[in-house]
Amino acid sequence: MNDKLVIGLAGMPGAGKSIVVSAAKEGGYGIVVMGDVVREETASRGLELNPQNVGKVMLELREQEGKSVIAKRCIPKIERIPENKILVDGIRSLAEVEEFRRHFPKFTLIAVHSSPETRFKRLYHRQRSDDSASWEVFHERDMRELSVGLGEAIAMAEHLIVNEEKYEVAKRKAKEVLRKVEQKWTK
Amino acid sequence: MNDKLVIGLAGMPGAGKSIVVSAAKEGGYGIVVMGDVVREETASRGLELNPQNVGKVMLELREQEGKSVIAKRCIPKIERIPENKILVDGIRSLAEVEEFRRHFPKFTLIAVHSSPETRFKRLYHRQRSDDSASWEVFHERDMRELSVGLGEAIAMAEHLIVNEEKYEVAKRKAKEVLRKVEQKWTK
Repeated sequence: MNDKLVIGLAGMPGAGKSIVVSAAKEGGYGIVVMGDVVREETASRGLELNPQNVGKVMLELREQEGKSVIAKRCIPKIERIPENKILVDGIRSLAEVEEFRRHFPKFTLIAVHSSPETRFKRLYHRQRSDDSASWEVFHERDMRELSVGLGEAIAMAEHLIVNEEKYEVAKRKAKEVLRKVEQKWTK
Repeated sequence: MNDKLVIGLAGMPGAGKSIVVSAAKEGGYGIVVMGDVVREETASRGLELNPQNVGKVMLELREQEGKSVIAKRCIPKIERIPENKILVDGIRSLAEVEEFRRHFPKFTLIAVHSSPETRFKRLYHRQRSDDSASWEVFHERDMRELSVGLGEAIAMAEHLIVNEEKYEVAKRKAKEVLRKVEQKWTK
């Protein structure tokens, strides 16, 4: 049994996951970024780090090693990290949640939610939501994220942070959620 | 263009959708329950209204008339209702959201979220979450709901109400969200 407190973090693009990462860093958490696994694999294959190559390697990895391949490759990283509390940024499916839970019984999932309109404004802050070209790119990215199972992970999160207000409000909510998770597991 | 304000409501079993229904009723909304469509179809086929028959008719309807069949059948109901503000309870997929949005340009989606542990306790309030038989039934129902696309709808909601505290807190949040939606559309 691995006794580390591992917290997963999920959210649609622009929802504000970075606020939770920031709160966790301040709280002494080690951070593991799931996307780094794919970038490392892309680099180790001698490919340039551009969105096309990273996307292609991601799909190949999933085909070759299954839906929870990224989670599996994160596990030794989590075990190597000296911190006893770790935040894993970038959960995308329930298959990953199950993989982490098998290794870290205290695994808890936090999700961050904002409306599509709010997320669009954050990601394309100079554009208006009636800019249909940008909206289309944004919407396609949303659909790609949902297609791997991100919506299911969000729906099944143990804690959900609604991030529609100021940065400070979300940051305070994030700290409160981290505190609750820690309290539950240090009893 | 149909000018009615139609609000969809989505949430996992036990999340507390009924709190939003109650707030909407108090606010003068007409209520349309998506599940009624399937129950009516089951009855019109001369079948007894039990979970097996309703489940079977639901699947047959989707096979015969596509993923947004329930939404399509709700539209004339919404149009017949005298109220100009309607809450549609039981959204289960983005296909349904798109169907409603095509007919009612002001369509807005509200989701309610609670942790799986909280939802389990509410639905099986006499049981403990270490009762693995009940937990399994609960989890299977969750997975069935997610398999039709409920997680995606929740992730893409315009407003999300976190319901982890007292009934009164969620009720207040629900009223506030309804007020915000109305303000946006009556400008």
